[in-house]
Amino acid sequence: MMNEQIVAIFESHPGEFISGQRLSQMLQCSRTAVWKHIQTLRSQGYDFEAAPRAGYRLRHKPDVLDVNLVTSRLQTAFMGHSLHYLEQTDSTQTVARELAENGAREGTVVIAEQQSSGRGRMGRKWHSPPGKGIWMSIVLKPRIPIQLAPQLTLLAAVALSRSIKRIAGVNVGIKWPNDLLIGGKKVCGILMESNAEDERLQYVIAGIGISVNLTEQDYPESLREIATSLRMASGQQISREQLLVDFFQEFEHLYNVFHDEGFSPIRTMWEANSISLHHPIRVTTAKGVVEGTAEAIDEFGALIVALPEGTVVKIYSGDVQLLAT
Amino acid sequence: MMNEQIVAIFESHPGEFISGQRLSQMLQCSRTAVWKHIQTLRSQGYDFEAAPRAGYRLRHKPDVLDVNLVTSRLQTAFMGHSLHYLEQTDSTQTVARELAENGAREGTVVIAEQQSSGRGRMGRKWHSPPGKGIWMSIVLKPRIPIQLAPQLTLLAAVALSRSIKRIAGVNVGIKWPNDLLIGGKKVCGILMESNAEDERLQYVIAGIGISVNLTEQDYPESLREIATSLRMASGQQISREQLLVDFFQEFEHLYNVFHDEGFSPIRTMWEANSISLHHPIRVTTAKGVVEGTAEAIDEFGALIVALPEGTVVKIYSGDVQLLAT
Repeated sequence: MMNEQIVAIFESHPGEFISGQRLSQMLQCSRTAVWKHIQTLRSQGYDFEAAPRAGYRLRHKPDVLDVNLVTSRLQTAFMGHSLHYLEQTDSTQTVARELAENGAREGTVVIAEQQSSGRGRMGRKWHSPPGKGIWMSIVLKPRIPIQLAPQLTLLAAVALSRSIKRIAGVNVGIKWPNDLLIGGKKVCGILMESNAEDERLQYVIAGIGISVNLTEQDYPESLREIATSLRMASGQQISREQLLVDFFQEFEHLYNVFHDEGFSPIRTMWEANSISLHHPIRVTTAKGVVEGTAEAIDEFGALIVALPEGTVVKIYSGDVQLLAT
Repeated sequence: MMNEQIVAIFESHPGEFISGQRLSQMLQCSRTAVWKHIQTLRSQGYDFEAAPRAGYRLRHKPDVLDVNLVTSRLQTAFMGHSLHYLEQTDSTQTVARELAENGAREGTVVIAEQQSSGRGRMGRKWHSPPGKGIWMSIVLKPRIPIQLAPQLTLLAAVALSRSIKRIAGVNVGIKWPNDLLIGGKKVCGILMESNAEDERLQYVIAGIGISVNLTEQDYPESLREIATSLRMASGQQISREQLLVDFFQEFEHLYNVFHDEGFSPIRTMWEANSISLHHPIRVTTAKGVVEGTAEAIDEFGALIVALPEGTVVKIYSGDVQLLAT
């Protein structure tokens, strides 16, 4: 409530500095309270400049996702038809899983402006600040046995890389199985949570994080060397709505192809978009470290690695590191 | 409380009939209340004979699982070391899953005397009356990728069939993937619920139902043609404790072999115990019905079926029906 009043005051004085003193009078609260509200707004993506004596100036409001725009432009049969938009949540993955457990239909999407506990692979934290990314989870009910679940991970990476190339005009490569990189830096993360009874998949939650309009300042120091955004890579602001609409359509198309024709066409596209193939790599698996050259993926989605001594191994699970050539 | 008093009265008059009139005086309650308590006790597995005028006689108390006996005889490294015993629950599967989500360690077992909503394959109800079966769920954290999860289902069926042969002395056969049959009738059900992040299994809940000491009267009419118990097949009462101790050990042994040597030895044992192989079968899959002869299982656990026209198909998921030869 108070936060909305503060935003309204700054919006009626565009580009102007307003002192803490004046704000506390207008809002009838202490200057400490004003400062606290400014801090809260900053954490929500409001960009305030602070100057000694002059006070505060609102430089940028956070970009709020226009859900109606997305919905009105959707041309899919099911993807995104049920769209749950949350200003903030701990993890869209957790919310989507609850929806799936309670019978949510295929294509249900949970999207949040901000995640407090966004999760990546291997329990790693996923940096998801407000207003600048697409942090979402999609409920899927694929009609495939559990053995083929990893193919879906690869499918998601293909759909995302194709959509990003089209909308942002940047060249994004897939690192096996599903990391999307630009110039060696991570720009998207995909995490597929599967639930099965015996060999039958009950549901899969596709967790997808896309760093769309983050700038260097949005990243903590520790991530700047290894992470980038579509904006940083393309030099321009990217419409999250446009990207979402395009991705939903691309994903649904490939998902239908996959169910109709199997993995083979997806595999060809994956290989065409991959940066792990024909490249020296190091793979860290539960059983140890393997170094060699990735040659292809097999019909199950496993990575086929040629070892220096001439033998070939199949990797079902592991972390890939590209080695300098 | 009142139920315990009733049981105590009958125990102090072994083999005797006690009239409803006398019971209502001893318990200081109405005869209707007495009748209601008798009904409750019956649903808990107490077997009362009722005779006009003579009243009630307690024929059998339900067999209560001796958890201490199981624990004291365990010779495993982890299987069954954490043993949750419940008199009644909706489904041990649900309880075990919650424990797994909250970090329960591998080998944690949830066992119930009675399940109100025991679940089988494809959401079918599993008949689990009190005191006469083993209805349990085991938390597993296998160190294998998701593609190999169906192998665990086959492993569980092998462990169970070997243990049953040893303890009950009856010949039990495995119908692909994991139904255990005696003389064509179902005696055990196995349901594996898997949860994975990308290709990494987070946990698997092995739901296992064994119809140990059920008699024909314990089955509803609709199940008598298709279900049996170890007691009905062997003609003798089987110790649930002994079976549990043996099964935990057998399962742990095969589970270790599987992690050390892979699926190959398990596959050999599965084929040796199978009744689906070299037999005409009909398989109902999501894509239609296939008839042919099951020849083997492949290295992923899929069923290889030779069709009459000479081709071979692999079945990853489906319901098998044995055809008359």
